[in-house]
Amino acid sequence: MSAPAAPLPDLRRLCVHTITTKPWAVETAAARFAAAGVGGITVWRDALAGRDIPATGRLLRDQGLAVVSLCRGGFFPGKTVEERARAIDDNRRAVAEAHALGAPLVVLVCGAVPGLPLEESRRQILDGIAAVLPDCEAAGVRLAIEPLHPMYADSRSAVNTLAQANDMVEALRSPHVGVAVDVYHLWWDPALETEIARCGRLGALAAFHVCDWRTPTVDLLNDRGLMGEGCIPLRRIRGWVEAAGFRGFNEVEIFSHRLWAGDQDEFLGSIVRAYREHV
Amino acid sequence: MSAPAAPLPDLRRLCVHTITTKPWAVETAAARFAAAGVGGITVWRDALAGRDIPATGRLLRDQGLAVVSLCRGGFFPGKTVEERARAIDDNRRAVAEAHALGAPLVVLVCGAVPGLPLEESRRQILDGIAAVLPDCEAAGVRLAIEPLHPMYADSRSAVNTLAQANDMVEALRSPHVGVAVDVYHLWWDPALETEIARCGRLGALAAFHVCDWRTPTVDLLNDRGLMGEGCIPLRRIRGWVEAAGFRGFNEVEIFSHRLWAGDQDEFLGSIVRAYREHV
Repeated sequence: MSAPAAPLPDLRRLCVHTITTKPWAVETAAARFAAAGVGGITVWRDALAGRDIPATGRLLRDQGLAVVSLCRGGFFPGKTVEERARAIDDNRRAVAEAHALGAPLVVLVCGAVPGLPLEESRRQILDGIAAVLPDCEAAGVRLAIEPLHPMYADSRSAVNTLAQANDMVEALRSPHVGVAVDVYHLWWDPALETEIARCGRLGALAAFHVCDWRTPTVDLLNDRGLMGEGCIPLRRIRGWVEAAGFRGFNEVEIFSHRLWAGDQDEFLGSIVRAYREHV
Repeated sequence: MSAPAAPLPDLRRLCVHTITTKPWAVETAAARFAAAGVGGITVWRDALAGRDIPATGRLLRDQGLAVVSLCRGGFFPGKTVEERARAIDDNRRAVAEAHALGAPLVVLVCGAVPGLPLEESRRQILDGIAAVLPDCEAAGVRLAIEPLHPMYADSRSAVNTLAQANDMVEALRSPHVGVAVDVYHLWWDPALETEIARCGRLGALAAFHVCDWRTPTVDLLNDRGLMGEGCIPLRRIRGWVEAAGFRGFNEVEIFSHRLWAGDQDEFLGSIVRAYREHV
């Protein structure tokens, strides 16, 4: 077992997702993140609504922020051919938006449909990703399969362990397909350390997302904790990810009605402190 | 992949947990279950509070009900030696209560403590079960390790997959240790079919619990669905369990604020209909 990672020396590898500070428009978030010394930003597609996307990408870089990824594509499974074709079209748009924004990566919440057998959803996900790969190659944009917590297997993702995501990477055999490791989804998995190492050997470790798991958790979607508020061994998992060769950003992705309801400047200050103390 | 099981011909293998109709006292539940033709009852320990346990066991059998199991023991991990010793004492009491009631099985929610590393909790669970085994042998009572959904890994169980439970059965090497397979906890697992088969080969398939997963699920603990209200492929999973040699009861274990708030006689009628149509 690897030792926990050492504390991070600075904020250069800290990335914050726009949805983490959802009350802020992307322009506000960019200015505040940059002023706080945050190194990178991951942009959710809703934050781009009505914007000139290339101009928004320039604005972010002009603040000194790295544009780490675009969230999110996916949701490939459907009960009809038409639904699945629409999903593929939407993922093509996501790749084009990432290219326009200057983001090298699109994170995939792969999708699931209640009542559709999970193995059928998994087949449709593989087919959907394969259909989008030519766009990825042309645009120079990579996809990251994000395995989601098993509590989302009904309607959000039929990919619920890192082993499954690694299997899909092996099946797809493309440098344009990687994996996003999110501690919230995966911390409980007894195979996590070995599958992170395998992901590294596959050259597929494309993103690392952090937050925390609160006890009790009162909402399945929007009660994530700030790092340090919960039970996830963040520094140990970062140690595993780095031992597997990862040198990218530590991305703070928190969905929380509680934290969105507070002052976002104070929240950003707490994120920076929590990053230094717990990530 | 096995074919889905055929519909069940009658209610003889239907067991209902006392907590499923929580508003009813155990005496009321027993009378109503028996009148509805239900074959078995699993008793939760809170339902025995203040009762003469052997007399309650006789009352259940006098109604024609099989006493299927006692819920629940477990919660072995603790941050101190004293906490762990208290947990072992409580599990010894659970075994004695099962013996007094005439229940052949105690179901274990194995436990977890926020902030205690999961692998440490797992070690403490193995040690705790081993400490209780002499009582099981003396009383002729078996323990069933119930792997819990990963969303309970923070504070309820560090055993979150059937593979882990099977590994523990192999490590403990005792005929007094088996596994409870609950579809709510395990339906999402891509290894479920193969691990059910392995559990059968180990001779460890001790209990089978059914309910359903609703979309959306609005509460992590108490929003389980009646069979047919959700997305779990119940009949396929029962087919796997039976292909692995299981011939025991199909136990309906539902925690639901919504269903507890309604008329419990109507609810029991719905359980019987749902059992015939969906299990």
